[in-house]
Amino acid sequence: MSRDTARVEAFSDAVIAVALTLMAVQLLQFGRTEAPDEDLVSKLENEWRAFLAYVITFAIVGQIWLTHHNSWRYVIRVDQMLLVLNLVMLMFVAAIPFTANQLSDHLRGSAVDQQISAAIYVGAVLGEALFFNLAWWWARWRGLLTPDLDPRLAELVSRRYLLRPLLYLGAFAIVFINPILSLLAYLLLVAIYLIRGPGDLPPGGQAEAESR
Amino acid sequence: MSRDTARVEAFSDAVIAVALTLMAVQLLQFGRTEAPDEDLVSKLENEWRAFLAYVITFAIVGQIWLTHHNSWRYVIRVDQMLLVLNLVMLMFVAAIPFTANQLSDHLRGSAVDQQISAAIYVGAVLGEALFFNLAWWWARWRGLLTPDLDPRLAELVSRRYLLRPLLYLGAFAIVFINPILSLLAYLLLVAIYLIRGPGDLPPGGQAEAESR
Amino acid sequence: MSRDTARVEAFSDAVIAVALTLMAVQLLQFGRTEAPDEDLVSKLENEWRAFLAYVITFAIVGQIWLTHHNSWRYVIRVDQMLLVLNLVMLMFVAAIPFTANQLSDHLRGSAVDQQISAAIYVGAVLGEALFFNLAWWWARWRGLLTPDLDPRLAELVSRRYLLRPLLYLGAFAIVFINPILSLLAYLLLVAIYLIRGPGDLPPGGQAEAESR
Amino acid sequence: MSRDTARVEAFSDAVIAVALTLMAVQLLQFGRTEAPDEDLVSKLENEWRAFLAYVITFAIVGQIWLTHHNSWRYVIRVDQMLLVLNLVMLMFVAAIPFTANQLSDHLRGSAVDQQISAAIYVGAVLGEALFFNLAWWWARWRGLLTPDLDPRLAELVSRRYLLRPLLYLGAFAIVFINPILSLLAYLLLVAIYLIRGPGDLPPGGQAEAESR
Repeated sequence: MSRDTARVEAFSDAVIAVALTLMAVQLLQFGRTEAPDEDLVSKLENEWRAFLAYVITFAIVGQIWLTHHNSWRYVIRVDQMLLVLNLVMLMFVAAIPFTANQLSDHLRGSAVDQQISAAIYVGAVLGEALFFNLAWWWARWRGLLTPDLDPRLAELVSRRYLLRPLLYLGAFAIVFINPILSLLAYLLLVAIYLIRGPGDLPPGGQAEAESR
Repeated sequence: MSRDTARVEAFSDAVIAVALTLMAVQLLQFGRTEAPDEDLVSKLENEWRAFLAYVITFAIVGQIWLTHHNSWRYVIRVDQMLLVLNLVMLMFVAAIPFTANQLSDHLRGSAVDQQISAAIYVGAVLGEALFFNLAWWWARWRGLLTPDLDPRLAELVSRRYLLRPLLYLGAFAIVFINPILSLLAYLLLVAIYLIRGPGDLPPGGQAEAESR
Repeated sequence: MSRDTARVEAFSDAVIAVALTLMAVQLLQFGRTEAPDEDLVSKLENEWRAFLAYVITFAIVGQIWLTHHNSWRYVIRVDQMLLVLNLVMLMFVAAIPFTANQLSDHLRGSAVDQQISAAIYVGAVLGEALFFNLAWWWARWRGLLTPDLDPRLAELVSRRYLLRPLLYLGAFAIVFINPILSLLAYLLLVAIYLIRGPGDLPPGGQAEAESR
Repeated sequence: MSRDTARVEAFSDAVIAVALTLMAVQLLQFGRTEAPDEDLVSKLENEWRAFLAYVITFAIVGQIWLTHHNSWRYVIRVDQMLLVLNLVMLMFVAAIPFTANQLSDHLRGSAVDQQISAAIYVGAVLGEALFFNLAWWWARWRGLLTPDLDPRLAELVSRRYLLRPLLYLGAFAIVFINPILSLLAYLLLVAIYLIRGPGDLPPGGQAEAESR
């Protein structure tokens, strides 16, 4: 692995780490804008959506980190285009706290508001998934991946990555039926991607991780 | 140590570093919302709880970093589940500034408010301790720790980690007697864990650290 | 490469990563200050400039990261002055989100406001470009670059870096004709610098990256 | 150098990087709270102190990073106490943006307000310098520094570090004469410490940096 690859990983991780903790800034501020004479129980009742947005953001951005971590294990070289694709992906990742916040804010809004905030949210998630896929395809096409990567495994991983935006679109479509159902579908998708699939870290971390 | 382990450590450190400095953002904002005609002395009198929350957060999150640092020295491999457990632990860590803020905000509130904010706080700290323990147990069970780790030492470390959530629950119980006493109990616990125990860095840092 | 160089890169990357995500904090807050009875469509109409500032910031700061990344690949030693020049450059980088925000805020303001905010913006960008160039010249002059760097390539890279502040000044001048045209000129400049030039990562990342 | 040392450096750098960029968050917010009908020129007149606080913070925190960077080059081992001392130092560093903000906010306040805000500021800076010195002394005493470090150089470096808090106290005393003079004295001190002294990186970065 070249020094460049390590630096790109570290930079991506820093952006993702800040994005993860952005929602905690939001939590901090919620408590301060309320009427000071309100008691804590009613405050919490008004704020439960902030907690929901915090958990959703952590789940989705955390899963993106895991996927990024798993896919970059195979990258041994970088070129200018891969860095640009990675940066655009990070732009969408850093916008996810904002969109998750909108989503949870409008859970009790009008049907139109719910659908628009769901559309903004799915826009950020789809943008991330799209540029993640483009970066992966580019790395495969330009020979930036380790030669140790079995072509059949690479093919399986590619298909798995490609499936993700399609599933997100499916979860988005459910918002026209019920916005909370749509939210649960997103969380279900995260859970599915946390289950080990091709290209993920092996159970017990033997062999492969060690030989590098 | 594999490259994966180093990357997980760096990512965890970034999240913890942002969580540590979140309270400083809070400090910055406190000064701005007050009446501009108030003089600085009365401002500071109103703000002392913000300083308290800052110190508590730094003490607790700093101690979590130390413990994380000490335990990950033994991790030589990672798998998908360990990463997920680590991410959930980080979710609780990043929520600690918010809960410490609530705790200090309600020190002078009603008894019910004090107990609820203490419960929220202990929830974040217990969640962190729980997933920290789960990650440690998982790493031991799946053989992700260095074979150089003496099984008796591993056992001692495990017990010490397990004790932490129980002590937190004890400190929480005190809130029903006196909330400030409960806060002092938390700080005492942090101090106790800063004292060297099994699995911590050796005094003078000889031997072990070097041989790696 | 010495350990010092790696640490300076990691520190610079952390500052740049936080600067990149600062605009996301801004996005989060925009949603909260509006009248709660306003519907989401009219909110978004009022907020489109926040999205624009977010994209501009990401484009410019992202491009700065790329350029920094490419130029520091050649640095093998650091001295005190290089660190100071790098720190001052980071000071201007961290101010870019603020200036981009001002720029987008005043797109619909009076002509004077547009020109002042454009001047503040170009001030931050020129300051960054100036100290970036100073750091590069210093590193060349003091022999801090790798001896593998072809002097003719170094010369080409130097000229390319030097051109950047001049182009920024050109884009700034356009604000006296039309502020939106000026903004588009900035984005065009970013796009131009993303195209591979001398000193950038080679296509396919072969050879050079590997031999290190 | 052990892996522990590198991780402590990376963590410290992340905290310092976030502290550096905290003031940029502050800048972003200043622009938003003003009356929307105010024009940009009068806004900037009201905000010049925010820019001053931004530059002061960057100068002081940047200089702390440089000093930290220079002193940790000699650390080859860490123990529990060194980590705790380093964490307490970081707690003071992360509070500097808040205190610099107070300082610049009260430049035009009453004499008492000026002196109190200067006292808070010097408190944070002295706390940082104190724990920085304690960490350095501890590392020397417990043999955590590289054996290559010439004892005479170590002695010179120790004295230089010790001088810093005394100079800060001197700059603080000037606030009773004139607060702006006191501020200039702080900036002068930063400039003095940026000049190469014993233990800093050698000019041209030869020899020493390379041999590691």
